[in-house]
Amino acid sequence: MRFVTYSYEGSKRIGALIDDQVIDLHNATIELLNVQGHIRAKQIAEAFVPANMVEFLQGGDQSIEMAREAVDFAIHNRKALSRKVVFPISEVRLEAPVQNPSKIICVGHNYREHILEMGRDLPPFPVVFAKFSNTIIGPEDNIPFFPISEQLDYEAEFAFVIGKRARNVTQEKALEYVAGYTIANDVTYRDIQRRTIQWLQGKTVEGSAPMGPWLVSADEIGDPTGLEVVLTVNGKERQRSNTANLVFTVPYLVEFLSGLMTLEPGDIVLTGTPGGVGVARNPQEFLTHDDVVRIEIERIGALENRVKKIEQE
Amino acid sequence: MRFVTYSYEGSKRIGALIDDQVIDLHNATIELLNVQGHIRAKQIAEAFVPANMVEFLQGGDQSIEMAREAVDFAIHNRKALSRKVVFPISEVRLEAPVQNPSKIICVGHNYREHILEMGRDLPPFPVVFAKFSNTIIGPEDNIPFFPISEQLDYEAEFAFVIGKRARNVTQEKALEYVAGYTIANDVTYRDIQRRTIQWLQGKTVEGSAPMGPWLVSADEIGDPTGLEVVLTVNGKERQRSNTANLVFTVPYLVEFLSGLMTLEPGDIVLTGTPGGVGVARNPQEFLTHDDVVRIEIERIGALENRVKKIEQE
Repeated sequence: MRFVTYSYEGSKRIGALIDDQVIDLHNATIELLNVQGHIRAKQIAEAFVPANMVEFLQGGDQSIEMAREAVDFAIHNRKALSRKVVFPISEVRLEAPVQNPSKIICVGHNYREHILEMGRDLPPFPVVFAKFSNTIIGPEDNIPFFPISEQLDYEAEFAFVIGKRARNVTQEKALEYVAGYTIANDVTYRDIQRRTIQWLQGKTVEGSAPMGPWLVSADEIGDPTGLEVVLTVNGKERQRSNTANLVFTVPYLVEFLSGLMTLEPGDIVLTGTPGGVGVARNPQEFLTHDDVVRIEIERIGALENRVKKIEQE
Repeated sequence: MRFVTYSYEGSKRIGALIDDQVIDLHNATIELLNVQGHIRAKQIAEAFVPANMVEFLQGGDQSIEMAREAVDFAIHNRKALSRKVVFPISEVRLEAPVQNPSKIICVGHNYREHILEMGRDLPPFPVVFAKFSNTIIGPEDNIPFFPISEQLDYEAEFAFVIGKRARNVTQEKALEYVAGYTIANDVTYRDIQRRTIQWLQGKTVEGSAPMGPWLVSADEIGDPTGLEVVLTVNGKERQRSNTANLVFTVPYLVEFLSGLMTLEPGDIVLTGTPGGVGVARNPQEFLTHDDVVRIEIERIGALENRVKKIEQE
């Protein structure tokens, strides 16, 4: 299933995308519970299928199961619904699927062929760094380019979202803790990233993590290796690789990270970017106003954002 | 005023510490609103003075003003209160003042005398890195020492907490955006910090950010320079400096950070640690089971935690 966060008439809510229709999960659940005779349908829906993705994921398998039933009910009883539950996708605005994760963990130097072509050894441990959630923007947002740097760069990333609280989880069990997958652009102010030895300041600039367009549930993907990742700028290919080339795989990262800290539902892990980023090109090619950055990942979809120079806030 | 988060009978709530009594802010506000004849006292208190520190700080000056009035009312009408509002401090457990900030931003290399004694130049930009909120523990918690490393180290830090949403704030206005100050120990698994070029993995291990014991409101401190910072391990002094030695001051950091990202109420900034950390001593002296780490900061208080080796989770 494809889960989305969408906005409609000023509020952000979660839904499932079925063909070109968004089914509102919270309202669909209320409708189903009403028909089942639950007098406290609203309260039960609020507890199990709230309108916010992180809170929904906190409900685990039980909440996902309720949401699936509700979607099925809504589709087959569309005319009998008293609430607005089904929207043509053209009527809503898609937002980043997860709005307020407690962590965004990024992995650096993780594509095998790129490391080897640079003449480096494969690293014994993943390099990890952070972005904060102020960076999150959605698939219909522009990438703001603030006048603090001339070196705005893109990084195509395959991302996974945690679905169950995870602490000391083994690789064998790891995929049970993944709710699903999405696409992220780890937009980087390259000179700001590099002006000190820690990258955070160039990585967590406002609006520098476009994500989406949706969260594809883990059961739909199965094994997350073997997915082609392609990034283009204005239609020209700049990055191409495949998740089969990840040095540290999704199960490895769940084990590694959950061995250090508790991962919470909604936490997002960006698994690293292939070669071909702007700063590493010869000559260097950074992003400029009006550039369109598109990332396609096989079986997930495409995330496309336009760069917009911000002269004055 | 000293704001605390405390737990009592299984729930975490916020209060003000007056002498050796904790006044529950939410309940005190309900009591005051009731006496003022507000039929929806509970709902108004929930909107303006909720029981969670981040949510309380989101209310800004208006919420702080209501809380102050409520505390005053509770102290002077103690016998007339129908709810449990006033607690002897001995009856409650103090927790980290801020439980779930959206950001914990740490500054590295920020004490002038220590940089100069190392023969380094003063840096042109602050080094900043992250911890996630899974690290937060309180003044009555032990520091968990997980069997993933032999190099557990301490770092005494003067910390400030954001009180108003801040974006592109100048140094001149910066202190208006600071809610208050507290003490933090930036506990670090030193070998894990250093095994890759990015520090995050050694910095965000579970339970590695003891904070507290309270948040001293900004108005009580005024100018945050000139505060002595001392860290002892088992009573022996290991670090000593003064916030007057900060290369990047609190106002500078508010300007610098808010120029990159939006700072939110409850966000915590750890301003860096003085010389004398365990890894830099000769011979090196790391923390071991049962060590007591105490950080005192002038006009703030003392944060003391015991190290507890965790053999098996």
